[in-house]
Amino acid sequence: MKPWKTVSRKVVQRFGKFLTVEAHEIELPDGRRLHNWPWLISPDFVLVLPRTTDGRFLIFRQTKYAVKGLSLAPVGGHMDDGEQPLAAAKRETLEETGYTAAKWVLLGSYVLHANRGGGHGHLYLALDARRKCAPHADDLEEQELLFLTHRQLELAFDRHQFKVLSWSTLIAQALRYLNKPEKPSCSKPAFSTRKSTRC
Amino acid sequence: MKPWKTVSRKVVQRFGKFLTVEAHEIELPDGRRLHNWPWLISPDFVLVLPRTTDGRFLIFRQTKYAVKGLSLAPVGGHMDDGEQPLAAAKRETLEETGYTAAKWVLLGSYVLHANRGGGHGHLYLALDARRKCAPHADDLEEQELLFLTHRQLELAFDRHQFKVLSWSTLIAQALRYLNKPEKPSCSKPAFSTRKSTRC
Repeated sequence: MKPWKTVSRKVVQRFGKFLTVEAHEIELPDGRRLHNWPWLISPDFVLVLPRTTDGRFLIFRQTKYAVKGLSLAPVGGHMDDGEQPLAAAKRETLEETGYTAAKWVLLGSYVLHANRGGGHGHLYLALDARRKCAPHADDLEEQELLFLTHRQLELAFDRHQFKVLSWSTLIAQALRYLNKPEKPSCSKPAFSTRKSTRC
Repeated sequence: MKPWKTVSRKVVQRFGKFLTVEAHEIELPDGRRLHNWPWLISPDFVLVLPRTTDGRFLIFRQTKYAVKGLSLAPVGGHMDDGEQPLAAAKRETLEETGYTAAKWVLLGSYVLHANRGGGHGHLYLALDARRKCAPHADDLEEQELLFLTHRQLELAFDRHQFKVLSWSTLIAQALRYLNKPEKPSCSKPAFSTRKSTRC
């Protein structure tokens, strides 16, 4: 199976630094051409589920322009130019909640849209989180910070209170990670900011 | 917390029936205005994980334009005009795999992008699937149909072989549903095409 080839591309609309819309001409492996294929360029983003040292998950209740009613939501935001995913995850967590965390687990990195791109999301679980300062987020939305127990998080997830695909992905993956009976330390995509024993 | 209000909207680009790009003017609850806010209109889509009567999961190995290398992928596609999510899930499953299923579980419905819309995804688990005919998909991508065991599906998921956010959401949710020790029949967003006992 061969990948599709981009023959040419042109910008059709720019929306500041958050979205550029392109039209691509594509050649399929059998030689056919596709014209005017939409392609979306957005910065990569991070989503973070922090859990405090006493086992509470930091979750927002908030509005979002594309969401009907209120939704529960994780910490999240776009990566700055040149910023690495883990650095962005730490920055967004501190900005939005005022918390830092001792252990960071990368649950996965995924492209938003299979056909149109739209940037990659990097999903983190942040363990042993402690309050360091007051939050100082510059988000436009109103939001309320909640401290959910593990059981409350599971119930909220199963009741579809996380209404955005990527948010649901993060919570589903975090619960899968946390509910596993054993977590071998050397075969998982997990890492700690503390010095660890070599495997 | 109040929702944002759409003050005006204009179409800036159309890409056939699959994507229309709009620019919105928005009023925030505090009276501030946002200009030129990007908004994406796409048809809703379904994603389906079918499991056969002998416990194999139907999964594709395929290319996608926005994905680097090969990815594992579920059944999926856009809903037709006026089509309901379950009908689309059944149609896509039959077209892409040639299978029908006796029991359908809605795992959730989510908007693609919290700020920009982009349509909703409806995620299904299709149980007791049986082969009815040859597949007759009209997808442009090359793809290979695999029959994974539960263990193989878990391993592939944990090794990040599903490379798209929405695909990862479906698999994470399906595994969460299937791995639960008990599934009360009346308190979950599950339904069957067979006649069921009232709760």
